Amino acid sequence: MSHPDADLHPVATGLAKKTVDEHSAEQPLKLFAGWFCPFVQRVWITLEEKGIPYQYIEINPYHKGPELLRANPRGLVPTLEVAPGKSLYESTVLCEYLEDHYPDHKPHKAGKDDYTRARARIWTDFVTSRVVPAFHRLLQFQPLKHEGGGEERLDELRREFRSRLLEFAREMDPRGPFFFGPELSLVDIVMIPWAVRLWVFEEFKGGLRVPEPGQGGPDEEAWARWRKWLDASSSRESVRKTTSEQEHYLPIYKRYAEDLAQSELAKATRAGRGVP
Amino acid sequence: MSHPDADLHPVATGLAKKTVDEHSAEQPLKLFAGWFCPFVQRVWITLEEKGIPYQYIEINPYHKGPELLRANPRGLVPTLEVAPGKSLYESTVLCEYLEDHYPDHKPHKAGKDDYTRARARIWTDFVTSRVVPAFHRLLQFQPLKHEGGGEERLDELRREFRSRLLEFAREMDPRGPFFFGPELSLVDIVMIPWAVRLWVFEEFKGGLRVPEPGQGGPDEEAWARWRKWLDASSSRESVRKTTSEQEHYLPIYKRYAEDLAQSELAKATRAGRGVP
Repeated sequence: MSHPDADLHPVATGLAKKTVDEHSAEQPLKLFAGWFCPFVQRVWITLEEKGIPYQYIEINPYHKGPELLRANPRGLVPTLEVAPGKSLYESTVLCEYLEDHYPDHKPHKAGKDDYTRARARIWTDFVTSRVVPAFHRLLQFQPLKHEGGGEERLDELRREFRSRLLEFAREMDPRGPFFFGPELSLVDIVMIPWAVRLWVFEEFKGGLRVPEPGQGGPDEEAWARWRKWLDASSSRESVRKTTSEQEHYLPIYKRYAEDLAQSELAKATRAGRGVP
Repeated sequence: MSHPDADLHPVATGLAKKTVDEHSAEQPLKLFAGWFCPFVQRVWITLEEKGIPYQYIEINPYHKGPELLRANPRGLVPTLEVAPGKSLYESTVLCEYLEDHYPDHKPHKAGKDDYTRARARIWTDFVTSRVVPAFHRLLQFQPLKHEGGGEERLDELRREFRSRLLEFAREMDPRGPFFFGPELSLVDIVMIPWAVRLWVFEEFKGGLRVPEPGQGGPDEEAWARWRKWLDASSSRESVRKTTSEQEHYLPIYKRYAEDLAQSELAKATRAGRGVP
């Protein structure tokens, strides 16, 4: 029986399609990817930023082919085959591996000293353990199934998610535009895939209600910093080159917004847990 | 009003007390610690293994002093002050920082090449995101409050936790004794604090029921590997030197076993979530 989420657009579109086409030739380094997956996009941006040669292999996560299962019996996407018989998984592990293993591929993304590298790990973990679960709790919330209509709870989830963004923004280098200053780093890269998907809240959940410029009250400075980061991040070439056309994300996120998605993350969110 | 968990033994005892005494003199590198905390023990073992000079500062997590709050306004333990005004937190970040920042302090713990380092990160994350939550779900489960007595659910939680240990054991170097072979690594270090606390299940939850040698059936090979790892790990000098007398852990774990503990991890477990 076919998986209920299996009916998604099969391949990348728009600018991302061009990137896929440019990376379809055989290479020793293979990225098993799903074009719509934000965890994949973290690794994909890192590869593009650093100009590392790689082969892009599209995997429908609901029809995992033998090639992926040979590389990773767990069938996880993203998987990076780094040599025959040697594969790695988990997006942040992959980003750090690329940083470690290709030291000649500039720019470096992990921070200029040990202290900064450690701070990058703290804030990378913050994105995965705090921002992403709050994103999904809001996205998958069903106000109509909630006692009393759920508008209040919806607003609470919006506030919770916005407060995570503010916490992140307050930790940033004050000038920016990126987390540690003028250079894009791993912390930016792990956050960006969710930041460029914020439109889902406008589409499905009545908006995220981030204050307009000048309207942030006591949080205005942090919101201004956030907007500056978001502008710089979403216009970054590596980000645009790994983003497909919005219309093809829509049906995928609609299933999340209706709390029908069956991905591991969707199920974990439904069960009240974080990123599995 | 005093915190219900605040009534714990105030300082390390046994071999750990000797270690604390040897590290009470002022040092630029300061470990803000709780003697009973398994996350602290990860960092403490790393410091001892590598022979890095440090100052041990005991913090009662329920009476956080101004010294800690100056170093880390979040008041988290473990916190490592690496220089005046520069502090880091999160146990795995701290272990990796010590590895990066003291390259002359052998033995290295992060793996001999980039691929091994990446595998170490995958399995470090497995311990934090899979093993520790399963440990706490079992420890905090209240069979008597469960419909039908809860013996069945208790057994399911035992099985779930044991299966995480088996998964870990199956990934190990077959000869060992440690995860990557003869040398202790970060993966071992992040697992050990929970491994040396397994007695809590015998004490409070009717046993974990790990098979006796030769009784593991189809899993015997993996259990044999686990036993070999556990023997080598629990007799390691750095582990013994950071462990207090069992009688003082008892009242602390009793509160967990009765699901009364109020630590962030205890509350997250109660709410069905993982490590906060």
